[in-house]
Amino acid sequence: MVPVGEHWGQSAVDLAGAAVQAARHDAGVDRLDLLVVANMLAACGPHGQLNLGAQIADWSGLGGIEAFKAEAACASGGSAFRAGWLAVASGQVDLALVVGVEKMTETLGPEVTLGLASAADADYEVPHGPSFVALNALIMQRYMHEYGWKHEHFAPFSIVAHDNASRNPYARLQDRISAEAYRKARMICNPINLLDASPIGDGAAAVLLAPLDRFSPRPGRTPLRVAGCTCATDSLAIHDRREPLRLQAAEESAARAYAMAGVGPDGIDFFELHDAFSIMSALSLEACGFAAPGQGPRLGLDGALAPGARLPIATHGGLKARGHPVGATGVYQIVEVVRQLWGEAGRNQLERAVTGMAQNVGGSGATIVTTILQTRN
Amino acid sequence: MVPVGEHWGQSAVDLAGAAVQAARHDAGVDRLDLLVVANMLAACGPHGQLNLGAQIADWSGLGGIEAFKAEAACASGGSAFRAGWLAVASGQVDLALVVGVEKMTETLGPEVTLGLASAADADYEVPHGPSFVALNALIMQRYMHEYGWKHEHFAPFSIVAHDNASRNPYARLQDRISAEAYRKARMICNPINLLDASPIGDGAAAVLLAPLDRFSPRPGRTPLRVAGCTCATDSLAIHDRREPLRLQAAEESAARAYAMAGVGPDGIDFFELHDAFSIMSALSLEACGFAAPGQGPRLGLDGALAPGARLPIATHGGLKARGHPVGATGVYQIVEVVRQLWGEAGRNQLERAVTGMAQNVGGSGATIVTTILQTRN
Repeated sequence: MVPVGEHWGQSAVDLAGAAVQAARHDAGVDRLDLLVVANMLAACGPHGQLNLGAQIADWSGLGGIEAFKAEAACASGGSAFRAGWLAVASGQVDLALVVGVEKMTETLGPEVTLGLASAADADYEVPHGPSFVALNALIMQRYMHEYGWKHEHFAPFSIVAHDNASRNPYARLQDRISAEAYRKARMICNPINLLDASPIGDGAAAVLLAPLDRFSPRPGRTPLRVAGCTCATDSLAIHDRREPLRLQAAEESAARAYAMAGVGPDGIDFFELHDAFSIMSALSLEACGFAAPGQGPRLGLDGALAPGARLPIATHGGLKARGHPVGATGVYQIVEVVRQLWGEAGRNQLERAVTGMAQNVGGSGATIVTTILQTRN
Repeated sequence: MVPVGEHWGQSAVDLAGAAVQAARHDAGVDRLDLLVVANMLAACGPHGQLNLGAQIADWSGLGGIEAFKAEAACASGGSAFRAGWLAVASGQVDLALVVGVEKMTETLGPEVTLGLASAADADYEVPHGPSFVALNALIMQRYMHEYGWKHEHFAPFSIVAHDNASRNPYARLQDRISAEAYRKARMICNPINLLDASPIGDGAAAVLLAPLDRFSPRPGRTPLRVAGCTCATDSLAIHDRREPLRLQAAEESAARAYAMAGVGPDGIDFFELHDAFSIMSALSLEACGFAAPGQGPRLGLDGALAPGARLPIATHGGLKARGHPVGATGVYQIVEVVRQLWGEAGRNQLERAVTGMAQNVGGSGATIVTTILQTRN
């Protein structure tokens, strides 16, 4: 991983290349067969860069290997991971490296807002004016109305994330926050205030996939198994969904991932969820069976989400505080799960970390990838 | 396939949806497991659309199935096909539909030129001013200088393509052209004139991948086998290549595809090549072993590329005359190979069509996917 932040001296290709080299060095692997790049925004704007797969492979000195980009808005990272996993599972590819990269802070604010809006429906949502934050605010507004929650009830999601980020040197925001700070934070789009929303950032993260029977991690590390990895989709436009407060694609994706892994919500030790906005934490927890519909905030209020509690979330700070370099986020989540399972999470290390789950959301619930990793028994 | 042309009344999603529905109807398949979307330019510009996978799956009524977009500039179609094939080969996915789509004609010319330039290196090529045509013109200029060819020697590539397109109702340019017309065509970027260059267009094409042991085409159609499918990459910037007149990624990709399929160039009955510019036809034929380096134009001058001759190319008109809806082109090529192998190519039908090859090029040779399809023995 590259720390999420403002990397003024480095381009997207530089950042991705740094993550690729770090991953190769960490795994002790020289040769690779496939590079899958996850990226959302490099193509956008007047001077975009496409064909990032070939470009990053070349920058990294990978000698002309197969490469392509996978994109599903903010679920690009999860989608690229799944594509890399399918490639290895096919037997056609031995060593696949998945690198997620995003470069956001050198772009002007309005352009970033336009870019992020391209995850929403360009024909039926965006022309009406809402930014991506506004679409999430509509969902949160409705959720509070339907289930009777107040804004302050969402505080634990952000507080836990910032607490965890305060111990993670890779995090964008390493300051802890109080309930009072949360309550008083500047309003962005009612009811979403500054401390409900994840910060953008520059970043890159990479992860290596290989067949377990032909490759071992270096001494001291257990082999990890992709126990489940699934993707499901929904309409881009929120108004096209029968139940806008249900992340149906998350439900389907999680149900299939549980079935693949042979575990249920009870078998998950920790959960790297897609807390781009605090409302998304609630919906994701509900969709994955950790809370009944409308009851996601209860988990936070009951203290169930902190390290050592029933279901630690955002163990490295989550999108909320580690930061949300959009196309790279899904890969950061996977790397964070890996670090927990290997006992290499530093001051964020959980005591029990045998089965970890990551869920990556593209758009306001349109593409959802759920991945369950396990230490191999 | 949707005919390549100007589809003023239809968005990219409409076009892709039409191809998806046509493919499902043609194959007699209702349920799908995976939709891979190939697209290059929808993300570009101020009001881009990302997350096309979920959007097209939703439009097509596919019920929330897994979906993502694969992008590798003009090789997006081939890359998406390979990703779909790997997914089916993994055993995790049964029925994968690959749809390539591009919508170009509603965008202003300068914006399309900027979009296409994003296939080149945005840091080290584009800032110097060359359009994508200009980069290809530099290659052609150098090629003519090194090997002593004159512009007129490239005429057969375009003449053959237009001849074939004149019999293809899906083609963008259905007019035949003469050697004189080729010689006198308006200069675009010396030495590339209007009849060396492929036309942009709107279009969409889709192809279904399935395990041969669990799925049969409808009666009267032989099962087709993906005998070879490989991808290799090179630097984006032409000036970074040791030999700018060699498509090294095409050589590697073709060599591996031949090895997979157990055939050599002699075993290929016809070749859907990436004739975005006539120089690319020459380089592609050389890289795939059909001509010695620098001798590609000889094949055209010897009449070897027409239907019924030694190596028919661009049997439906190629990029040059069927048209080049950039992100969709690689899927058009595959569909055209399939039509030949099934004997459903209408007035373009070749007499011998058992083994067909398609090669899809992203950038000026940066990402190259080679696919060999065969009727199953």
